[in-house]
Amino acid sequence: MSLFDDSLKNIQSPDKEIMEKTKNKLDGLVKPIGSLGTLEDISIKISGITGKINNTINKKCVVIMAADNGICEDGVSCTPKEVTHIQTLNFTKGIAGINVLAKHAGSDLKIVDIGIDSDISHPKIINKKIRKGTSNISKGSAMTREEAIKGIEIGIEIVTELVKEGYDLLGTGEMGIGNTSTSSAIAMCLTQCSSDLAVGKGAGLTQEMFVHKKNIIDTAIKVNIPDENDPLDVLSKVGGFDIAGLVGCFIGAAVNKIPIVIDGMISAAAALVAYKLNPLTREYMIPSHKSAEPGYILMLQTMQLKPMLHLNMRLGEGSGCPLAFNIVEAALKITNEMASFNEISMDDDFLIDIRDNNWDGKNSLNNWWCQKW
Amino acid sequence: MSLFDDSLKNIQSPDKEIMEKTKNKLDGLVKPIGSLGTLEDISIKISGITGKINNTINKKCVVIMAADNGICEDGVSCTPKEVTHIQTLNFTKGIAGINVLAKHAGSDLKIVDIGIDSDISHPKIINKKIRKGTSNISKGSAMTREEAIKGIEIGIEIVTELVKEGYDLLGTGEMGIGNTSTSSAIAMCLTQCSSDLAVGKGAGLTQEMFVHKKNIIDTAIKVNIPDENDPLDVLSKVGGFDIAGLVGCFIGAAVNKIPIVIDGMISAAAALVAYKLNPLTREYMIPSHKSAEPGYILMLQTMQLKPMLHLNMRLGEGSGCPLAFNIVEAALKITNEMASFNEISMDDDFLIDIRDNNWDGKNSLNNWWCQKW
Repeated sequence: MSLFDDSLKNIQSPDKEIMEKTKNKLDGLVKPIGSLGTLEDISIKISGITGKINNTINKKCVVIMAADNGICEDGVSCTPKEVTHIQTLNFTKGIAGINVLAKHAGSDLKIVDIGIDSDISHPKIINKKIRKGTSNISKGSAMTREEAIKGIEIGIEIVTELVKEGYDLLGTGEMGIGNTSTSSAIAMCLTQCSSDLAVGKGAGLTQEMFVHKKNIIDTAIKVNIPDENDPLDVLSKVGGFDIAGLVGCFIGAAVNKIPIVIDGMISAAAALVAYKLNPLTREYMIPSHKSAEPGYILMLQTMQLKPMLHLNMRLGEGSGCPLAFNIVEAALKITNEMASFNEISMDDDFLIDIRDNNWDGKNSLNNWWCQKW
Repeated sequence: MSLFDDSLKNIQSPDKEIMEKTKNKLDGLVKPIGSLGTLEDISIKISGITGKINNTINKKCVVIMAADNGICEDGVSCTPKEVTHIQTLNFTKGIAGINVLAKHAGSDLKIVDIGIDSDISHPKIINKKIRKGTSNISKGSAMTREEAIKGIEIGIEIVTELVKEGYDLLGTGEMGIGNTSTSSAIAMCLTQCSSDLAVGKGAGLTQEMFVHKKNIIDTAIKVNIPDENDPLDVLSKVGGFDIAGLVGCFIGAAVNKIPIVIDGMISAAAALVAYKLNPLTREYMIPSHKSAEPGYILMLQTMQLKPMLHLNMRLGEGSGCPLAFNIVEAALKITNEMASFNEISMDDDFLIDIRDNNWDGKNSLNNWWCQKW
């Protein structure tokens, strides 16, 4: 059996019993039940992933999949495609947005060339080039089905390697001019919506270019007729190598039982393909920020996930992940470090006074905050 | 002139010239213009506050104002009012939600007793008690106008002291059973909305108690007839000592020219009173999370501010502030640490190739990303 098939079949359900125990622990902490909202949800989710109530993050990494997209020849982006190469090199120099944000969060970066259309070579760039850019989806399939599987397997392998190196929280990033177009096409196929709902202005199109972009994406779908019930068909026909690699990251995280953060539009498209391949992958995903691209929220809704950060960001690169990492770590510390009602000292005179006069002892103190939200 | 009047008059406009320069710097960084959204807005805002393009945060603190509310005798909360005392003591022990989150963000806490209804005493609690709890607003005014001013001046003094100690980023927290009721009453007066729109379930009311809470708050407004054009009248009649102290924190931050983060519902009510007293205070405020209390978003909209974090939190204590601190620091690092287009090395062979063949030299590289969003 191939790594692709094998991985998809080996993804396990989260440990519901431990999740229940973590919820019970959270409900016993000195706060109204559920009052830390998503922080509690994250901590419960991660306990289901790891099988432990208390968790800490040791090593964090954002995986950046970089590749070019043939659709650029149709002028769907106002940015020259050479910027895929330039910006990927910038990642190695530590000067791009994702570098600054990752450093701030104490996160490493793994930069992967999975299909850049140049002879890029750098010790910090992992060479996994499938081909120099996809074919133009407005004229035919972006890649073969075999290439799509290869891309996914590259993602699985990279994550498996990172897990061996001790990473226990991952994020998904990308660099590829034209990839809001491929992501929008995936969103249209897998959420069954029109280009009016799914397509945005990317890095900054004029109104005229925006209309052109929508037309080109509509053409790509008409030309390829992707089968919405076959996520691999959708990915190979209208996706990109970067997205294929990220699909593999989501599958790899799930099979290796570690949480993985979704960045913006392109990461969400990859997450949705992974979810359609095996819905259990969702149990390992943590959303970060609400992308300014309109297709993003449709895809998250399909997976019943909600972004935590509303920052009107549209950079890509994985830039939402380090900000989410900080929230994830805060969430875990709530479970690990807050006191429970049972631990509160009863020695204080005032507490004794309350206990003796107003309430019926410690059991009432355990219920001091309303428990019926 | 009183500290209150003096402070309100001495708040200055942010430095628009520096803000423009910061925006120019951000526009020259290696990313599409504006693509880091709110991160860029925060960095620009703080540059206007400090008068410097590049800023770093040295010391952070969440100020917690703790006080009791007379309205509790009407059963608006499912939590006994003694919990104000108990939880304030828990803050000194480092075991509450805000302790864990503040520690995670590297933030200190300043705990202020501004009106707890007990003889609380602890070296870590600053005693600024105005009175042992406000009067019941369903029967009359919460406090006198003089007490409201005193509360505000306590907040101004505490912030001024913190600034002297080197703190340059503050957050606002509170502890006071019953204070979602007083905050809702303020929201109703200052946004001119009904209790149906402003009142929420606080720490967790049943439907029956929720209807009762709305009735009591409606009664409080009928009894007191606060003048919506006189924020001090609103604060003194239907507010609380905790809110008064936080109003002072917002004014104090503005007059001392440092940014201050709004936590949830109660902090937002205080921010709105400060804004109504002097709209320039808004220029020093940074919202954090979208409270689950419905009145919150009405108040933020009145100030034209948007929360960054959607975490469904409703704990209070200032718990949203440390999470926002991390985003603020990330925002400042973007301005300080990302490279500009001008700094990118042109030595790379591939870049030279692009420059010589495809584009018209470095000026085009400066515009490689679409600049017309």
